[in-house]
Amino acid sequence: MSLSSLQQFQQEIENAKSINADAVAGAEARNATLTKPAGALGLLEELAIWYAGWRGDARPSLDAPQVIVFAGNHGVAARGVSAFPPEVTEQMVMNFEHGGAAVNQLAKTFGAKMDVHALSLDRPTQDFTQAPAMSEAELLEALNTGWNAVDTAADLLVVGEMGIGNTTPAAAIAARFYGGGADRWVGRGTGVDDAGLAIKSETVALGLDRHASTAPLDVLANLGGREIAAMTGAMGRARVLGLPMLIDGFIATAAASVLHQIAEHGLDHAVAAHCSVEGAHQEMLRELGKEPILTLGLRLGEGSGAALAIGILKGAIACHSGMASFAEAGVSDG
Amino acid sequence: MSLSSLQQFQQEIENAKSINADAVAGAEARNATLTKPAGALGLLEELAIWYAGWRGDARPSLDAPQVIVFAGNHGVAARGVSAFPPEVTEQMVMNFEHGGAAVNQLAKTFGAKMDVHALSLDRPTQDFTQAPAMSEAELLEALNTGWNAVDTAADLLVVGEMGIGNTTPAAAIAARFYGGGADRWVGRGTGVDDAGLAIKSETVALGLDRHASTAPLDVLANLGGREIAAMTGAMGRARVLGLPMLIDGFIATAAASVLHQIAEHGLDHAVAAHCSVEGAHQEMLRELGKEPILTLGLRLGEGSGAALAIGILKGAIACHSGMASFAEAGVSDG
Repeated sequence: MSLSSLQQFQQEIENAKSINADAVAGAEARNATLTKPAGALGLLEELAIWYAGWRGDARPSLDAPQVIVFAGNHGVAARGVSAFPPEVTEQMVMNFEHGGAAVNQLAKTFGAKMDVHALSLDRPTQDFTQAPAMSEAELLEALNTGWNAVDTAADLLVVGEMGIGNTTPAAAIAARFYGGGADRWVGRGTGVDDAGLAIKSETVALGLDRHASTAPLDVLANLGGREIAAMTGAMGRARVLGLPMLIDGFIATAAASVLHQIAEHGLDHAVAAHCSVEGAHQEMLRELGKEPILTLGLRLGEGSGAALAIGILKGAIACHSGMASFAEAGVSDG
Repeated sequence: MSLSSLQQFQQEIENAKSINADAVAGAEARNATLTKPAGALGLLEELAIWYAGWRGDARPSLDAPQVIVFAGNHGVAARGVSAFPPEVTEQMVMNFEHGGAAVNQLAKTFGAKMDVHALSLDRPTQDFTQAPAMSEAELLEALNTGWNAVDTAADLLVVGEMGIGNTTPAAAIAARFYGGGADRWVGRGTGVDDAGLAIKSETVALGLDRHASTAPLDVLANLGGREIAAMTGAMGRARVLGLPMLIDGFIATAAASVLHQIAEHGLDHAVAAHCSVEGAHQEMLRELGKEPILTLGLRLGEGSGAALAIGILKGAIACHSGMASFAEAGVSDG
C-alpha cells in the first residue's frame, strides 16, 4: 500500500510504535541466566536484547535478513564531484543483478536475500545548486519505491545504495540538518583528488545558500537524490513495521537522519553497523547518538558494511537464544 | 606425530616457512581488478590477501574452520585470584561438550568444527609463587596435546580456553616477556573485585620474583598453565603447517606471545581477532604488532571473539574470491 502524500509519511513515522518493553525485559532476564560472567559478551548482549525487543520475542532468531540496494543519478555529478563517470551507476546496477558486487558476496555469506531497485537512472535529479533536486511528486515516488521494497516477512533490514556523486547530496543533507558549513561534511568519497574535493565543498555551499528550509522532507527534496529518498522510504517502512535495521555508511546515514529529524524516536529500530573512512561519517553518527559496531576502514557503500554486520548480529542472537543457563548446564554462578 | 622434546618445538617454529609470496602477489593483482574503488573494502582487502598468501592460493575459499578449546586448572586459583570457584572449569567443559556455551553458538553460526580438550583438570598446575607451574615433562605433554589437536585439513584455526584463574598466569607471562611489573598486566578478568585484583597483582609479583628466566619455554613452564601451553602447541602447529589463525583474547594472546618470543616470525600466520576489555590486552597486542579486527567489549575467552571474527574473514574472502572484475562486469574503472 503506497503512501499517498509526504504528510502521510511524516505522520506514519511520528506515530510509529515503540520497542516491545516486555520482550526487552524477557531478554534481559534470559541474558542474566546464561553460562558466562555478567556482561562478558559486551556489545553482543546489548545487540541481542535490542533485537529481541524489536522482534517482540525474548528468545528470537535471525533467519530472513533482507538487503535492498537503491541506485540513482545526480545532477551535481556533472560538476565533477566524483572520481567516476555517471555511467558507472547503471553499470554497477547490472553488476548487482548479475551477483558480481561486494554486497552480493556479503549478502550470500550471511544468508540475506538481496533486491536491487534502479530509480530513473536516465533522468538524474536536478543540480541542487540551480534548483531543488526533486519536485514533491518525484520525492513521493522515490519514498514509495523504498516503502514498497521492504519485505514484510524479513526479520532484519539492510539498505544500501549506488549513485555516482552521492556523497555530495549526503554531505549537503547533513550540513543543512547539523550545521557547521560544507567543509565539515564533505570528504573524498570513493577517492576524489584535492580539486574534486574543492568542487564538492563549493557545490554543497551553493546548495545550502539556495535551499534554506530545514523541514526534513524539504531538505530531502532540495538536496537529496532518488536513491537517498528511497532509502529513507525503506528505513521509514521498517520503523513503522518495527523491523530492526542496520545502518550502513555515509549516504545511508544521511538518509536515516531524515527519520531522526522527523521524530527523535525515528531511528530507535536502527543500529549503526560500521564507521566509514569518509571523514564526516563519525560526526553524523554522533549527531544520531549511534555507536558503530565495526570500524574496518570501509568506504564502499552498497550496504556492504551493514551486510557484513549481519554476521555479528547473527552471532549475538545465536549466543543469546542458543546458550545454556547456569541451571541447565549445572555450572556454579560465581 | 608428537614432539619428542621442547627443543624440537622451538626448532620447528624457528624453521617454519614464510607466507607464499606468489599467492600474495596473485591476490594483490586480483584485488586491483575487482569492481570497487581501490582500497574501498579497507581491512577486508588486507585480510583476504593475508589469507590467500597463507593458503597459497590467490583466490582462496574458507570452508573448514576449526575451533579448539583447551581447559586447565591452576594452582594459583587457590589464592583467590578469580570470582569463580575452580569447579567451574570442569562444569564448563561439560557445557562445551553439550553445546551450551557461547563459543558453541558462534562456531555453529560460522560453520566451524569445534573440539574440546580438558587437560588433567583433577591435577592443577603448581602454585607458581611456590614452584614452577609445570615440569618440563608436563609442559611437553601439554604442548603435544595442542600440537596433535590441530586438524591438518582445516583452513583456519581458532584456539580458545577455559581455566578458572587463568588471567593470572597470562599476566605473569606477559610481565616476564615485556616488563613493567605486575600492575601493568593484571586486570579484573571475569569480574574480580578490588581485593581480588590486589591478590592477583601480589601473586604475579611473587611469581616474577621466583622465576627469572626469560627463555620462552621456561616462562611457559614456570608461569603458564596446561591449557595455555596446549594453546601455544596448537598455534605452533598451525605456524608450521602454514595454517592461518585468528588470535582470541588476553589468555590466547599470552599463549601466542611465546611463539613470538621464540621467533619474530612466529605469529606471521596470525591476525588478532578482537581487543578484549581486559585492560592489558591492547598492550599485549601492541607488543606483538597486531591490530585487532573487532572491539566489542568482550571478556569471555573460550575463543569466542576469534570465532566471531570468522564471520568477518568469511566476508572478506567471499568478496575477494567472488566479486566480478571491472572487465567481467563491463564497469568503467574511474
